[in-house]
Amino acid sequence: MLRSCAARLRTLGAVPGPARRSFSSEKATQKDYSLPNPSWTKDIRLLYDQFMKKCEDGSWKRLPSYKCKSTQRVQNFRNLFLDTKFVEEQTPKAQIFTRSLEEGLGFEYVMFHNEAEKRVVCVFQGGPHLQGNHGYVHGGAIATMIDITAGTCAVLTGGYAMTANLNINFRRPIPLCSVVVINSQIDKIEGRKYFISCDIRSVDEKTLYSEATSLFIKLDPNSLK
Amino acid sequence: MLRSCAARLRTLGAVPGPARRSFSSEKATQKDYSLPNPSWTKDIRLLYDQFMKKCEDGSWKRLPSYKCKSTQRVQNFRNLFLDTKFVEEQTPKAQIFTRSLEEGLGFEYVMFHNEAEKRVVCVFQGGPHLQGNHGYVHGGAIATMIDITAGTCAVLTGGYAMTANLNINFRRPIPLCSVVVINSQIDKIEGRKYFISCDIRSVDEKTLYSEATSLFIKLDPNSLK
Repeated sequence: MLRSCAARLRTLGAVPGPARRSFSSEKATQKDYSLPNPSWTKDIRLLYDQFMKKCEDGSWKRLPSYKCKSTQRVQNFRNLFLDTKFVEEQTPKAQIFTRSLEEGLGFEYVMFHNEAEKRVVCVFQGGPHLQGNHGYVHGGAIATMIDITAGTCAVLTGGYAMTANLNINFRRPIPLCSVVVINSQIDKIEGRKYFISCDIRSVDEKTLYSEATSLFIKLDPNSLK
Repeated sequence: MLRSCAARLRTLGAVPGPARRSFSSEKATQKDYSLPNPSWTKDIRLLYDQFMKKCEDGSWKRLPSYKCKSTQRVQNFRNLFLDTKFVEEQTPKAQIFTRSLEEGLGFEYVMFHNEAEKRVVCVFQGGPHLQGNHGYVHGGAIATMIDITAGTCAVLTGGYAMTANLNINFRRPIPLCSVVVINSQIDKIEGRKYFISCDIRSVDEKTLYSEATSLFIKLDPNSLK
């Protein structure tokens, strides 16, 4: 439950509503991890440039990504959903999972959002410390990227939400250090239920690596306290 | 696909067959990460001690866990299933995903195997760098632990196998830095298909955090070359 909010909390700039108020100050004080860095290969840079072009007419937006240790939005979220005392005791050194590994060794990614199409696309480069089977990206790392991409799609449409189900079919192994494209879109909304499908393909779109369906539940502020 | 083999490759000591031949030399040269370290809390130490007691009559076995960069087993696996040249080019700095974070900050776990019951139990402490939503373990980190626990269960029964499907229901969020017990067992075997169920519970077993079903396919040496 709730982990889709991690994606939500990493996509501060694109979320409507009161939370936007503190965006500019967060931008000023926190590093944005979804910008190119020296570890990015030609493939991920090429896709980044292509999507940045799509952003020019406003149909797509790049989603900034922060470690998000202590922002106004986290505070808002905690006030709404969590027992803050408990959280303080539990997470003195807490860091967002997907930004915890060193630059280039773990999760390198950038997400783009198309509001009209209710789609989020993530360009992902799986670093050498994400190894599962020898030479390939770990299934858990793939599940992580599916969770945050689909979760971001849910949260940008409906606000705070939690993952209720992830159902992943692994078709082909993803070579370590390669770049793939994760495509997520909302298929159906039923009340507080958001049904989101997701696939992972090679840069040339010819290879389907994974397919997933997911269910996210919009959070009720009283559901966790 | 294939990521269950990562678990397989991390459970060197418990696997029957030729691969066992080089176990002693690996034990001598590689650090075993499934032994207690200073970051382990009272909860995980208590469960570790309880399971070590169960190991005394031989019904349960503790599974050692290595970063497994270059062992005889990896060599065997590569010779059987991979294009070695490709792997060498792709993974100069490769590390097993679940052992890539610093001691105490990421995945702290130990697995135990009961051969007669076809069960693998994993005692897991999710460190502060596994954060998803604020104060809770990331869903991707949970999926990772389910994958390696169920994958180990499949591989210890049938040999090299790959994850074909993971279907996870997230019932309750897992507090960061807490200890949980992951229980996996083989429900059914149909030819090369291994159907494995898995759940994650609190130490006192009263809280069900997650439930999952999974399908693993025993590998055909010709399936990937």
